[in-house]
Amino acid sequence: MGEKEISKAVIKRLPRYYRYLGELMDSGVERISSGELSKRMHVTASQIRQDLNNFGGFGQQGYGYNVQYLYEEIGKILGLDKRHNMIIIGAGNLGQAIANYENFETRGFITKAMFDKNPELSGMKVRGIEVHGMDELEDYIVSNDIHIAALAIPKAGAIVVAQRLVNCGIKAIWNFAHTDLNLPKDVMVENVHLSESLMRLSYKINSYEQEHRK
Amino acid sequence: MGEKEISKAVIKRLPRYYRYLGELMDSGVERISSGELSKRMHVTASQIRQDLNNFGGFGQQGYGYNVQYLYEEIGKILGLDKRHNMIIIGAGNLGQAIANYENFETRGFITKAMFDKNPELSGMKVRGIEVHGMDELEDYIVSNDIHIAALAIPKAGAIVVAQRLVNCGIKAIWNFAHTDLNLPKDVMVENVHLSESLMRLSYKINSYEQEHRK
Repeated sequence: MGEKEISKAVIKRLPRYYRYLGELMDSGVERISSGELSKRMHVTASQIRQDLNNFGGFGQQGYGYNVQYLYEEIGKILGLDKRHNMIIIGAGNLGQAIANYENFETRGFITKAMFDKNPELSGMKVRGIEVHGMDELEDYIVSNDIHIAALAIPKAGAIVVAQRLVNCGIKAIWNFAHTDLNLPKDVMVENVHLSESLMRLSYKINSYEQEHRK
Repeated sequence: MGEKEISKAVIKRLPRYYRYLGELMDSGVERISSGELSKRMHVTASQIRQDLNNFGGFGQQGYGYNVQYLYEEIGKILGLDKRHNMIIIGAGNLGQAIANYENFETRGFITKAMFDKNPELSGMKVRGIEVHGMDELEDYIVSNDIHIAALAIPKAGAIVVAQRLVNCGIKAIWNFAHTDLNLPKDVMVENVHLSESLMRLSYKINSYEQEHRK
């Protein structure tokens, strides 16, 4: 596509730009300078210019960035202009919490169904999204053009379920189980390891305390 | 403390080492070479040696790493040898999901109470952890030696609640609300922005598809 390779670090920051630009649009702001954006986002203006230069031609000297244009272009880079049908495996608290996020839909992630191995949950609805039994998994995925599966189940069952998902053609897994899935390279995985996040918080507390005891 | 500065990238990887080492201990492995660890973790052996060299003296040429020693040392660096009392703000699905993670406790994070603005939830218990009204927040924090607050509420109320937490001495916030908190520098914040994680997954799908359409 002729585009230059964008670094992973920049990619990681794009969702945050997207969020701020969306908020600016909501409050009616049409143009913004890198300086103003810098103040809001607590990032240096030169970092902002460097990051956004990766996509070429967004900023005009003296005029700032066109908020809506930039929002839409970043959206396209993130693939948010496409629609993805999603299912959630695990209808416990975490699965239900994910099902309840309405704003995933406005970004093109449509949760079509939930699945749980507990037969008592079958037929339950969360925000209109129905829970199915695990025996219906493969048929449902194939018949409903599902691209993404969120895996909100404990570690113990995660590897086996992930393999079932891959076997029936799922190409993207949003993994909340506390384990690495080690799937084929053409299956995209994004991990949310809550316990590792909590350890990073613990590290920050610990190193701050050590620093200030010196 | 005379230690050399450890890079952010290494710190980010430590919880994953900690998880793998814990699993090795559970299965009775006492020593492991960087080569074997490399195969399990899908990281190059030289990366492992480089990362672990930051802490000095863990590996012995030809003998490999002492699993338990390494596990404990990394635990200390992450501050997991200390005990932290935690509260959860928001007793919805996400708050309840967090309250249900038993293994946080084995790592020293003790959830003492939950808080919710919905009076109907007051008195409800999740795994023995009681939900209190938001009017009890300040008194509870001060009387119960609370260090960490998990913020599992929507964006709209997050900034105000975070300020209340800081005002009564909370020094660490685990933030699930989809907004930046911008707190004083001595308050540690770790963000879990689910919607940004989902966008990164979307980016991976999108860029993989473009790559293979070339």
